[in-house]
Amino acid sequence: VTQPRASVAVVGIGLVGGSLLRRLTAEGVVVVGYDADPATRAVARTAGARAERPGWTVAGSLGEAVHDVDLVVLAVPLPTLAEVLAALARCGYEGLLTDVTSVKVTPAALAREHCPRARWLGGHPMAGTERSGFEASTQGLFDGAAWVLCVERHTPSADVLAVVRLATTVGARVVPATAEEHDRAVARASHLPHLVAAALTSTAADGPDGALALTLGAGSFRDGTRVAATRPELTAAMCAANAAVLADALDQLRGRLARVGDALAGEDPVAALLPILGAAQRIRAAWPVTAGERVTVPVEMAALLALGRDGGWITGIADDAGTLLAVRPRSAAEQ
Amino acid sequence: VTQPRASVAVVGIGLVGGSLLRRLTAEGVVVVGYDADPATRAVARTAGARAERPGWTVAGSLGEAVHDVDLVVLAVPLPTLAEVLAALARCGYEGLLTDVTSVKVTPAALAREHCPRARWLGGHPMAGTERSGFEASTQGLFDGAAWVLCVERHTPSADVLAVVRLATTVGARVVPATAEEHDRAVARASHLPHLVAAALTSTAADGPDGALALTLGAGSFRDGTRVAATRPELTAAMCAANAAVLADALDQLRGRLARVGDALAGEDPVAALLPILGAAQRIRAAWPVTAGERVTVPVEMAALLALGRDGGWITGIADDAGTLLAVRPRSAAEQ
Repeated sequence: VTQPRASVAVVGIGLVGGSLLRRLTAEGVVVVGYDADPATRAVARTAGARAERPGWTVAGSLGEAVHDVDLVVLAVPLPTLAEVLAALARCGYEGLLTDVTSVKVTPAALAREHCPRARWLGGHPMAGTERSGFEASTQGLFDGAAWVLCVERHTPSADVLAVVRLATTVGARVVPATAEEHDRAVARASHLPHLVAAALTSTAADGPDGALALTLGAGSFRDGTRVAATRPELTAAMCAANAAVLADALDQLRGRLARVGDALAGEDPVAALLPILGAAQRIRAAWPVTAGERVTVPVEMAALLALGRDGGWITGIADDAGTLLAVRPRSAAEQ
Repeated sequence: VTQPRASVAVVGIGLVGGSLLRRLTAEGVVVVGYDADPATRAVARTAGARAERPGWTVAGSLGEAVHDVDLVVLAVPLPTLAEVLAALARCGYEGLLTDVTSVKVTPAALAREHCPRARWLGGHPMAGTERSGFEASTQGLFDGAAWVLCVERHTPSADVLAVVRLATTVGARVVPATAEEHDRAVARASHLPHLVAAALTSTAADGPDGALALTLGAGSFRDGTRVAATRPELTAAMCAANAAVLADALDQLRGRLARVGDALAGEDPVAALLPILGAAQRIRAAWPVTAGERVTVPVEMAALLALGRDGGWITGIADDAGTLLAVRPRSAAEQ
């Protein structure tokens, strides 16, 4: 039996890469995986052989994985990205290349430097758990998740369509943004919550009442600190890669906490806290952002970026492939 | 048919009080409820009539609710506690009195001032949701939750046993602490997470990328901000009642965040962040605190306070009622 030609290669098969193998296979996309770690390759190969037919295959080398595919997805940790890009260039890969790392300015620069002949279109699925590795991968990881697509003014439409197809096939909704917009937004939506979770955890455990405080921790502590259990190397690499932008976001947060401290120290803490808490409550009660008006958007970079900036997202590709199906966020007035 | 005499009165039948009515009734305890709001009384009365037999009853006045019970549980919001205590004193109540508010130093002082003839033994079940009101109450609210019991040197053993029985009957585990220890511990385990959730929410929504950031928010944002959706009046009252202690905890957190900022701004953010994140990860990965060695503890205040200070808790009352069944927290070495 000849294995049909794979159209997508997934390089790095941990939580995200493994989940891509599982879901793409389930959706009928023929996909090949590769990981630098032989043990991970062996586990993923065994799981692929057991998967519903046709299962994914796992290549024995990077060159074998990418030699005849239309799209390579780099699902490797950010600290190894430069090295993997250089290896891809040595393999002669010149096709479309995307990634899933949690920052977007740095990977774009690394791709230009280390693999300049491939066409780079950075991506970031906002999906994950505090667990990691192929063992944690699941078919449903991307269901409903935002998948950022970092387009630039001259990104070819066909490349946009290819990555939109990948992301929507695995259940995600695609949010267009520039790499700079992405990095500023995720600093506040994702990186900052990780740093705060760590600081909250250590503050609770501090001092002579630390054991009592941890025993008393309930829902607000559980949820507010959950991602502090993430592997420190992953969080450190993610935050360090966005350090300057994240430091600005942290300054904003510290400014807000200073005002909270002033409110607590003032004459009437209830009155001083109410507007601070009320503003946050209105924002959080309207979250998550839900789908509002359905629209179509041309595969045109300015229009796509305007959609993302407004908080909208792409849900699919129209039949003629000349336009994208999209939604605008439901406004507060519509809720 | 004569309704059997109620042994417990629950005053204030919102989320916590309503959940007490439901669970105590399910456990065969005859209980009477009262709320100052006639509409809440009507809803709770109807629900009680529909509950499994015998359902709880709802009294038409505070005096009727408490005139012949052994234990009154005040499940009213903190801002109304003084007024309810004064009303209880006017009813002539001189029995055992406990509460469920989220701070413990202030209520003890209010009880001494406004209802000095009742025997006060403050409590705090660490259970709740971002919803409130009788409509949100459930039988299972207290399952596995820590229920702080604020004993003092001369608290009568019989009173301790009565509140331990109440808390363990509804599924909670009892953590003994002084009121001061409680307030310091919950400032860090509960109040601070609420303030941080609000600040994180507003920081994410800030600036020109706010709409994009909210659309990209995923698990870390969802969990890190969940309690920001709590009614602002409740959070403000809770935090204001513990303002001085909470301000200290906030200062500690801000100090930690300043060090995180230094790490981001330094030469090697990964190396600087790793020990900060690693320390938090070890604490959080070992949480929640789980049961270790089973022990028995005499109903003796110093022994109870030592148990709570070490992070242990009471699980029940031994058959002879002279000792309490307890567990110590599982140590890191045992995990």
